[in-house]
Amino acid sequence: MASIERINAYTPAEFSAAFGKVYEHSAWIAERAFAQRPFASDTALLLALWGVVQSASPQEQLALLNAHPELAGKEAQTGTLTDASTHEQSVAGLGTLDASQRAQLIELNRQYLARFGFPFIICARLNSRDAIFGILRARLTNSRDQELQNALTQVGQIARLRLLDILAEP
Amino acid sequence: MASIERINAYTPAEFSAAFGKVYEHSAWIAERAFAQRPFASDTALLLALWGVVQSASPQEQLALLNAHPELAGKEAQTGTLTDASTHEQSVAGLGTLDASQRAQLIELNRQYLARFGFPFIICARLNSRDAIFGILRARLTNSRDQELQNALTQVGQIARLRLLDILAEP
Repeated sequence: MASIERINAYTPAEFSAAFGKVYEHSAWIAERAFAQRPFASDTALLLALWGVVQSASPQEQLALLNAHPELAGKEAQTGTLTDASTHEQSVAGLGTLDASQRAQLIELNRQYLARFGFPFIICARLNSRDAIFGILRARLTNSRDQELQNALTQVGQIARLRLLDILAEP
Repeated sequence: MASIERINAYTPAEFSAAFGKVYEHSAWIAERAFAQRPFASDTALLLALWGVVQSASPQEQLALLNAHPELAGKEAQTGTLTDASTHEQSVAGLGTLDASQRAQLIELNRQYLARFGFPFIICARLNSRDAIFGILRARLTNSRDQELQNALTQVGQIARLRLLDILAEP
């Protein structure tokens, strides 16, 4: 990937093409961060993107959560996940669930969405398959306010790993 | 709490006194962030502190994790927790565990520390008591690399809520 000097010289279109996918289906985050150039370092770029999320309105934050697919949900089954999500769910072993595990996950996702109004989000690359099931069950016992914050934090972890991947590309 | 303009005029000692406790027993994080004044906003201050953590060496990050107490551990039982931790553990209902729950938590903490080399860390204010038990069991199935990142993320959540509390003080 380009150096931070090169990134700081990107046009808006180049910047959006490079970093629009850091946040799932939410290129507006990269587009808003663009105004904060120049970035002193890769970390400064990461924090600028995260700062856009932190400074977004509650409505925008909720839209960001709702831009995420369900784990092993209909997008995964119909092949319409983003490339990044496909990779992440596969690393966590969610691509090889048996029928009973898949049915469990669909039911837990349904309960979560019904309770909170946004899908269950977890950084799949930072959790084992068993951990994902256990944490989904556990987080169902939290309040909506708690889960809004937990979900956003997971979104931040997902974004951090995606950005590191992009920056590491040859 | 003081406005960001007033915070930007703090001496090093005032800044450390105000924000040194945002990260548990780790005032070096606030002290290092001090060099980045002036901060444009409360969010900029939050991100500057978090940026110090992100840019710290792996050894420093591990020391930060190890500066955290065990949940309902010996510091809680001997009254030597920081004020912030006492409050956080109490909000999550960890101050009123019965003997069996306390024994379970001690045993799970022991397994976690033995497996990963640092204590189990979770933002207690953002999880129910049941969720804390479930997530601790779930995270025991992760790898050490995964848990290093999950623990640091939880530290960031704890710090964010502590900073918001400090900024909201009259």
